[in-house]
Amino acid sequence: MRIALASDHAAIALKAALADHVRDLGHEPIDLGPETADSVDYPDFGYKLAQAIASGVADRGIALCGSGIGISIAVNRNPAARCALVSEPLSARLSREHNDANVIAMGARLIGPDMAKECVSVFLATEFGGDRHARRVAKLSNPQISELSA
Amino acid sequence: MRIALASDHAAIALKAALADHVRDLGHEPIDLGPETADSVDYPDFGYKLAQAIASGVADRGIALCGSGIGISIAVNRNPAARCALVSEPLSARLSREHNDANVIAMGARLIGPDMAKECVSVFLATEFGGDRHARRVAKLSNPQISELSA
Repeated sequence: MRIALASDHAAIALKAALADHVRDLGHEPIDLGPETADSVDYPDFGYKLAQAIASGVADRGIALCGSGIGISIAVNRNPAARCALVSEPLSARLSREHNDANVIAMGARLIGPDMAKECVSVFLATEFGGDRHARRVAKLSNPQISELSA
Repeated sequence: MRIALASDHAAIALKAALADHVRDLGHEPIDLGPETADSVDYPDFGYKLAQAIASGVADRGIALCGSGIGISIAVNRNPAARCALVSEPLSARLSREHNDANVIAMGARLIGPDMAKECVSVFLATEFGGDRHARRVAKLSNPQISELSA
C-alpha cells in the first residue's frame, strides 16, 4: 500500500522513523512534509494528508503532531478520512476492525518510537470487520444519512 | 457550563457516571442519549453532540463509545467541534491549552471510570493558551484559510 505521512515540526523525527518502518513492512511511504523543524501549523499538513486519501494518491495515512490531537481533528474534517488517534496497539486494531480507519494519528511528545511502530504494524495488518460496522462507517462518510442529526 | 454528553450503547453506564461527575463539579450535564442499552449507531449521536455545540445549546461535550474512535470521528465532521480522543489527563490538558478542544471523547471499553472522571475534571478546568495556538485553531474552524490544502 501507499502510506502518506504528514506531521508538524514537533514530529519530524518520528515521521522519518515511521517512514522507514513502513518501508520495512513492504509498503511505500509518501512523505507529505514538513521537511525541516521550522514551525508550521498542523492543520495545513492534516488537510494535505486527508486530501491525499480523498484523491487516491495514498491508500492509508499516518498523522503526527505533538499530542496527535490537533492533526487528528484536521484530518477528520474531510469525510473521506477516518482518522483514529491512538497510543497503543489495541486501539490501532479496533480502529481497523470497527471503524475501517484509513489514517492513524499519534502524539510524538506522548508515545515512544517502538510503541508507535507497533501501532503502525497493527494498523496496516488488520482488516475491516464489515457487517454491522459497515452501516456505521457509511454514516461517517455521508453525514446526511444519519438518523438523528438535524 | 452546560456539558452535553452523548454515546453509543457500549457507553451508557460511563455516560451516567460522568453526568454525575459533571454535576459534582458544578456544571450542568445535558444527556443527549441514548437512554437504553439497545444497539445504536455512534455516528448518529456524535452528530447530535456536535450540533449541540454548533448551536450553542452546550458549551462543551463528552463523547463516548466502545473505543472512543468512531464517535470522535463523527463529532469532528462538524467544523464547530474540536474533539480530542483522550485516555489520560495530560492529553485532556493539552487538548484545552493547545487546541481549545470543546469536546473530549473516551472509550468506555478501554478507560476506567476514575481515569475518565479525572480527564473530565482536567478538561473542564483548563483554559486555552491562545497566542500561536489561536492561528492554528482558526484553521481548524475554517479549512479554506489553510495554506497547503487544495
